[in-house]
Amino acid sequence: MYKVEWDIVTAEKAGYDHFMLKEIYEQPKAYRDTMGARIDDAGKRIVLDEVKMTAQQIQDIHQIHIVACGTAYHAGLVGKSVIESLARIPVEVEVASEYRYRNPIITPNTLVIVVSQSGETADTLAALKEAKRCGARVLAITNVVGSSVSREADDVIVTWAGPEIAVASTKAYTSQLIAFYLLGLYFAQTLGMQEAEVIEETIQALRQLPEQVESILADAEKIKVYAEQISKHDNLFFIGRGLDYAVAQEGSLKLKEISYIHSEAYAAGELKHGTLALIEEGIPVIALATQEELLEKTVSNIKEVAARGAYVMGVGSEGNEEIAKAVDELFTIPRTLPLLTPALSVVPLQLLSYYASLARGNDVDKPRNLAKSVTVE
Amino acid sequence: MYKVEWDIVTAEKAGYDHFMLKEIYEQPKAYRDTMGARIDDAGKRIVLDEVKMTAQQIQDIHQIHIVACGTAYHAGLVGKSVIESLARIPVEVEVASEYRYRNPIITPNTLVIVVSQSGETADTLAALKEAKRCGARVLAITNVVGSSVSREADDVIVTWAGPEIAVASTKAYTSQLIAFYLLGLYFAQTLGMQEAEVIEETIQALRQLPEQVESILADAEKIKVYAEQISKHDNLFFIGRGLDYAVAQEGSLKLKEISYIHSEAYAAGELKHGTLALIEEGIPVIALATQEELLEKTVSNIKEVAARGAYVMGVGSEGNEEIAKAVDELFTIPRTLPLLTPALSVVPLQLLSYYASLARGNDVDKPRNLAKSVTVE
Repeated sequence: MYKVEWDIVTAEKAGYDHFMLKEIYEQPKAYRDTMGARIDDAGKRIVLDEVKMTAQQIQDIHQIHIVACGTAYHAGLVGKSVIESLARIPVEVEVASEYRYRNPIITPNTLVIVVSQSGETADTLAALKEAKRCGARVLAITNVVGSSVSREADDVIVTWAGPEIAVASTKAYTSQLIAFYLLGLYFAQTLGMQEAEVIEETIQALRQLPEQVESILADAEKIKVYAEQISKHDNLFFIGRGLDYAVAQEGSLKLKEISYIHSEAYAAGELKHGTLALIEEGIPVIALATQEELLEKTVSNIKEVAARGAYVMGVGSEGNEEIAKAVDELFTIPRTLPLLTPALSVVPLQLLSYYASLARGNDVDKPRNLAKSVTVE
Repeated sequence: MYKVEWDIVTAEKAGYDHFMLKEIYEQPKAYRDTMGARIDDAGKRIVLDEVKMTAQQIQDIHQIHIVACGTAYHAGLVGKSVIESLARIPVEVEVASEYRYRNPIITPNTLVIVVSQSGETADTLAALKEAKRCGARVLAITNVVGSSVSREADDVIVTWAGPEIAVASTKAYTSQLIAFYLLGLYFAQTLGMQEAEVIEETIQALRQLPEQVESILADAEKIKVYAEQISKHDNLFFIGRGLDYAVAQEGSLKLKEISYIHSEAYAAGELKHGTLALIEEGIPVIALATQEELLEKTVSNIKEVAARGAYVMGVGSEGNEEIAKAVDELFTIPRTLPLLTPALSVVPLQLLSYYASLARGNDVDKPRNLAKSVTVE
């Protein structure tokens, strides 16, 4: 029996300068707790008793809508890739404030997944109610047991990230990723959509993540140096392809929230269709290139921006020579399955925004204009 | 019989300072030509002989994927709303450089719609081929008869915008919108998804668009004054909800491309989830608020940014008192059906980027780093 323990002490800073830094460092524990008893002892199968759908009901899902706001929406972008590639069910991801007003096409074969750390996000809650009114089954991924979202949903997967105090979400986001990995595997296993070996191999890789995050955190000083450099700029870009693009969007939002640098994430292949006009001498570009299959294409995009004077920091997987040659600075993450890289590659980006915010003298835990949970519309 | 005439003269500047300005002013003609013979003489039905799908084949479409790059992708965002609301077929829109590499879920019941002005966009063409390989039927919307995309697709809708020379696309984009309106109506009419009166009313409103664009163009001086103001800034934001958000994304890209201002479009309801931290005294925000049903929510978002010192230019529909009170400057567009507003509201944004680019002394027709058609990957 796996028991999750978070007590009042975890809600204090425990020696860290800021809640955000503490929460970044709590991620290995949050990963372990969120996986917890949801993997069987043999490490072969996912056990998700809280998902009460029958095998037939899962079989009957024709379409999944993932609905969320802000950082949770970015977790949903990864969730789409995970569910589509493992379970082959079509997934659409949309921000809640758009979804709820646009009369989405919902049938009895639509599963709506809402994601909210607090479980109280106003637009997400309203979208949930709208989806139920239209006859959809709703599954919630939330960090707060007993929250409004968890009470209204048909199925609830709790992320055991523990209390998150900093406005900029870190461990809640990565725990949402873990929840999506578990759910994607569970659907695949129920539908017989993947060989037992694939499930087992993915589970093994999942279990290595906490330790891999620890090794990234041990390298934080490298990120700090780069963060101090970029903190002098008012504009920068993140680029990536596939899952790297999803993580780029989260990295960019994080930086915006607490450093107030105008950063924007772009699908690397879209650069030529407009944004390349903004690349000029010295502008920082943070390039994610962890996806082996897309590496050549991403490196070619890195060369495009570098040729126009951009100063490029790359995030790549260990042992990748090609990207090392193309960038000015390189941060490497340990090797894992391509589908799991977001749970690692986002960590240096969290540290980057933390140190950039510090260098600019901002209030890291309470950025201007923002609230922790957006409970008004 | 409606005959489209574009000759060599149209490929010269014909008295305009730049091709872009000329092409902006050619939009009423491009709208008329693209509708052309595709509306029956009585104005009651859409005639799309170039779409060779049978009624049964249209009935069998379970899912539509719209795939494109840059500005054409933004037309696809409007296309999604149009097809989903008129024909109630679920639509997913994705940039081609992402779609082609991610092993999308394609079945024999998937229709893939590719959009490309030149019909030679490398990623779009590759996505088309990948979709066909997976067994999907492909419909192309393109401006160039005989282009690679038009040769490879099963069905082709040509936008009769005439040659577009400026790198920043204007009349090709709006003609793509017209093509989506025609296609959405055609699907709805074939599936019996809308009452005959709704089809007729929408056709009537479509036919008024060219004249309404002319009235916007007559007001260009107002936009010029505001463009000169924003040209002094290096950062700004566009906001909107629903179709206004889709147009905001196109307006933002246009501005980026030729003014090199770092502008970014946000779904207005997402501001509170991060970007609000970047709003400070004097930063320009361009707020689109043409959607009657979402007006109250959008006005509330406008007040949020205004309270933090943003200088707000609103784009609203004639006779809307509420938005007039909330913004610093207001540009109004003539009234039309909510679904058709993008074909009007984008025009002031095109002019805005044109005049901002001029004010900054840039090469309007040939912005740095960009090519007209991206025929390499």
